[in-house]
Amino acid sequence: MALPDEFHELARRVRNWGRWGADDEIGTMNLVTDDVVRRAVACVRTGKRFSLALPLSGDGPQIGTVPGRINPLHTMIAINAPYLDPDGFRTSDDVIVMATQAATHWDALAHASYGGRIYNGFPAESVTAEQGATRCGVDKIPHVVTRGVLLDVARAKGVDRLEGGYALTADDLDAAAELARVDVLPGDVVLLRTGQMQLLFAGDKLGYCVPNPGPSMQTVQWFRDHDVAAVATDSFTYEVFPPEREDCALPVHLLHLVDTGMTQGQHFVLEPLAADCADDGVYEFLLEASPQPIVGGTGTPVNPVVVK
Amino acid sequence: MALPDEFHELARRVRNWGRWGADDEIGTMNLVTDDVVRRAVACVRTGKRFSLALPLSGDGPQIGTVPGRINPLHTMIAINAPYLDPDGFRTSDDVIVMATQAATHWDALAHASYGGRIYNGFPAESVTAEQGATRCGVDKIPHVVTRGVLLDVARAKGVDRLEGGYALTADDLDAAAELARVDVLPGDVVLLRTGQMQLLFAGDKLGYCVPNPGPSMQTVQWFRDHDVAAVATDSFTYEVFPPEREDCALPVHLLHLVDTGMTQGQHFVLEPLAADCADDGVYEFLLEASPQPIVGGTGTPVNPVVVK
Amino acid sequence: MALPDEFHELARRVRNWGRWGADDEIGTMNLVTDDVVRRAVACVRTGKRFSLALPLSGDGPQIGTVPGRINPLHTMIAINAPYLDPDGFRTSDDVIVMATQAATHWDALAHASYGGRIYNGFPAESVTAEQGATRCGVDKIPHVVTRGVLLDVARAKGVDRLEGGYALTADDLDAAAELARVDVLPGDVVLLRTGQMQLLFAGDKLGYCVPNPGPSMQTVQWFRDHDVAAVATDSFTYEVFPPEREDCALPVHLLHLVDTGMTQGQHFVLEPLAADCADDGVYEFLLEASPQPIVGGTGTPVNPVVVK
Amino acid sequence: MALPDEFHELARRVRNWGRWGADDEIGTMNLVTDDVVRRAVACVRTGKRFSLALPLSGDGPQIGTVPGRINPLHTMIAINAPYLDPDGFRTSDDVIVMATQAATHWDALAHASYGGRIYNGFPAESVTAEQGATRCGVDKIPHVVTRGVLLDVARAKGVDRLEGGYALTADDLDAAAELARVDVLPGDVVLLRTGQMQLLFAGDKLGYCVPNPGPSMQTVQWFRDHDVAAVATDSFTYEVFPPEREDCALPVHLLHLVDTGMTQGQHFVLEPLAADCADDGVYEFLLEASPQPIVGGTGTPVNPVVVK
Repeated sequence: MALPDEFHELARRVRNWGRWGADDEIGTMNLVTDDVVRRAVACVRTGKRFSLALPLSGDGPQIGTVPGRINPLHTMIAINAPYLDPDGFRTSDDVIVMATQAATHWDALAHASYGGRIYNGFPAESVTAEQGATRCGVDKIPHVVTRGVLLDVARAKGVDRLEGGYALTADDLDAAAELARVDVLPGDVVLLRTGQMQLLFAGDKLGYCVPNPGPSMQTVQWFRDHDVAAVATDSFTYEVFPPEREDCALPVHLLHLVDTGMTQGQHFVLEPLAADCADDGVYEFLLEASPQPIVGGTGTPVNPVVVK
Repeated sequence: MALPDEFHELARRVRNWGRWGADDEIGTMNLVTDDVVRRAVACVRTGKRFSLALPLSGDGPQIGTVPGRINPLHTMIAINAPYLDPDGFRTSDDVIVMATQAATHWDALAHASYGGRIYNGFPAESVTAEQGATRCGVDKIPHVVTRGVLLDVARAKGVDRLEGGYALTADDLDAAAELARVDVLPGDVVLLRTGQMQLLFAGDKLGYCVPNPGPSMQTVQWFRDHDVAAVATDSFTYEVFPPEREDCALPVHLLHLVDTGMTQGQHFVLEPLAADCADDGVYEFLLEASPQPIVGGTGTPVNPVVVK
Repeated sequence: MALPDEFHELARRVRNWGRWGADDEIGTMNLVTDDVVRRAVACVRTGKRFSLALPLSGDGPQIGTVPGRINPLHTMIAINAPYLDPDGFRTSDDVIVMATQAATHWDALAHASYGGRIYNGFPAESVTAEQGATRCGVDKIPHVVTRGVLLDVARAKGVDRLEGGYALTADDLDAAAELARVDVLPGDVVLLRTGQMQLLFAGDKLGYCVPNPGPSMQTVQWFRDHDVAAVATDSFTYEVFPPEREDCALPVHLLHLVDTGMTQGQHFVLEPLAADCADDGVYEFLLEASPQPIVGGTGTPVNPVVVK
Repeated sequence: MALPDEFHELARRVRNWGRWGADDEIGTMNLVTDDVVRRAVACVRTGKRFSLALPLSGDGPQIGTVPGRINPLHTMIAINAPYLDPDGFRTSDDVIVMATQAATHWDALAHASYGGRIYNGFPAESVTAEQGATRCGVDKIPHVVTRGVLLDVARAKGVDRLEGGYALTADDLDAAAELARVDVLPGDVVLLRTGQMQLLFAGDKLGYCVPNPGPSMQTVQWFRDHDVAAVATDSFTYEVFPPEREDCALPVHLLHLVDTGMTQGQHFVLEPLAADCADDGVYEFLLEASPQPIVGGTGTPVNPVVVK
């Protein structure tokens, strides 16, 4: 069953293939120039910091809906093990096993494909079992340091939390930008607050997973028009789910990752940051959210840190 | 065989137990205040960025000298897997298995113990197989954003690379700080370049591992006096190895981690950064090197990013 | 809170410490002599075989009740990868991550301890993070080949499945042996059918886990008197749970593993075998259920195979 | 570069596609009938047992020649962890991470492909990242219980160990069968001793890996003619390596697995068994070597046990 015409038309409009050359593997991350970084740094006023990462533990958000995507498993290989002299140096050491997309993470551009293609027209077959993503893997993005902007859509709409399944609109984004008193500019990373993670913190892992409010086919053009470097949400599924059209599953993943070449983040912890922004009225900040350099990774855990 | 008196005297002089309260689990990371962060941000001039992380792959620096500390293993759980409709959305997903200290990493304060104690006097038994480091784990440090200072000891001594086994002295650090024209201040992270990683890049993994030039019992007081937040090196073993005294193995690990409560980093890639600093004469910068929030982690992979 | 006197009296009566020497690490497995093996082989009449293992997959019986004991995770490292010539040899390769006790498994004697001791009085500290079980690990048992006897307690009691929480009695075992027309002899492995696994196959993983019918403080002496080499059940928890006494959790694990030194098995698939035994009236057979030689393993996956 | 004609002619002669039906996924394992099992059991005389498995530990035979195929990694998730009452039950638990083909193992028929096909003509694409081998995986073989025959080729040729790179001939196999005074019959598993594992035990892991003596294009027909259920060797690479023809890498893997549909085993420890067989002159025995039921596994660790 082919994807609908509406999808393909949208794809054509937001597609960035070739924009940064035929060999480009990082898409909109190219928009983070030295100038953008200086602009980001200029936002810092107080030095206050926020980590936006979920703890990495077996009690993570995964509930088995994605086979193989296990919560992080932390195991020990040494506990106060003596080295030569039992009265001297002792060491503890550990191993972690985790799905790269288990908790707070970036999707690599190679994470999604359709029609046999990933971003920039590279063949989907460029992802192999032996080497992972040989094109557009997370290792191709050495660092993510830029201005972050919190678009608190829930607050802009006057609610604590958007309803599950709510499809965000371009107007919602404009309203949130207005609330933030920020012009979203090329190279920014947008942090999109829906309030969905409240369900996770309340212990409702299933409700956190589905239904999901989030970006939709109605917001794809907006992100492309603003030339955003990346978008991250405070949810499991990232985009609205169940989808807007029955004949088009997870279209935002495809349009963002494959066509626009825009990296996307999930499970970002935004509640404390949002409270602070509401408090001081400052919704822009320095954001550092660099990938782990997993060679061939289709995703990467990330500890995004905001400096206000 | 007890640790020698020289060690214990030094331990007493550099010990920070209780300095930030009896419950403190992050030691010198407390020195990174909002003021320090603003000072760090003020260093940024060009927006140029450097990632200091080794790639995470099976071809990492581990050669089996630490049992169980495997190089990262990247495996696939989905490759362009269709979701519902084969003509629509397809996804690739992966899993990573890694020793937390396999590549570029921070040691948690809980990583080392002696005399039954870790930092701040917590019992070594606070590290368990079930929960890992329940005290002083990496998850207790939410973020590392501060000023970084490159002390290029090799360059200050007029060599490309220090000899394996060379024990750094306080004078070496002073000379490198003078070369850098930087006063090392409380809350700074010192990046200590020995040039040792040239061996790794040349394919000599064994030579990279041992013998190792690095911090020694002669530099421990210096770092404590300057109230540094953390120190990272461009080497496998971090400190000088073989050790200065036969009766005292890995004393710097113990003194830094257990007594001073100072986080330490290993396998930091410093060659390109050092070349740039030599070029523009600027050895201070904004450093972001936040841990992965591994609950109970005795170490954490890190992608340290410098912004100049 | 000390274990109750009833427990300690029972422990004294069934304890085998020293019986096979002070260095013995395999306990009742010593009872499987060449003679016993020949007796086992003599049971074979038809050559019909049964595997008693659950499939190893992410859809296993684990539901998170034991932290870290994940279901098996199967991942790929090569899929039809060419070697030199794309028109020639291609290979597929994989990696498995699993808790040793995730599915059908043997507990090593080192799996349980109390009072600071494991079987034969070895210190509990003989289990380390660096080496696992240095005493009484699964690697000390090179093979398990002996006579197996199915004691179908459910059938002997005239039910399809024992109620959850039912504590088996010595009379129940006698009745099942009578039904089987078998004298349980030294060196036999007893397969104890409760019918509990029907719940797993019906999709009720929680009900399968708890409450659990099984061996109890009332059957410990029976197994010791019959000098059984090992006992395995068709359940998650092995012994009756919740326990018979509130002040004594999992006493059968302790008495079997620590005192008697008797290996125990869990998650054995007994339904098809039981149907066959009911059909032909033959409840004894050759059983092969050798451990994986995991050095230091406190447990091991096993594919137990019956030959009738 | 196409495979040579010699290969294709041989492939046609030994191919078993369709022999056990179009849906068959286990090939020559079909030859192990109840009759064969009874014949195997009838070989048992003394009850003496041998395990043929290498220990599973980080010190295994892998040296990095196959990317991702790591030696077994054993880690702890609980060490004498109390359950409710610190004076009562305590438990130790562990996790193993291993390449399925790291140590003593069976290759599944799905392990190798050429021309886009695996055994019985199933498409190579039937191996996926999501599900592993959906056709001809190790989970399709519930058990391996049959007669084992040791063909001690080294001894038959009057040497302790065959030279690395020696290509076995059909005459070699006949000579070894004559030495064994055994007629190799349909459904037998042949254990092929080359002596190569002496190098591993001597610590020469590289020499153990390559060059390798073993089955060759000259022995493929012999195994097919004798309708052997499986063949296992005491080596890393299984077949002769470097290969006999430069234009045909690993042809025996392809002919055995893909064409004949014959499971093959590697890293079988044969030295103690061979010494015993030389001593008593009995080279046939009961062999139990059942796979772990890894769903989708392209290989499986195995602890093969011989009963004489």
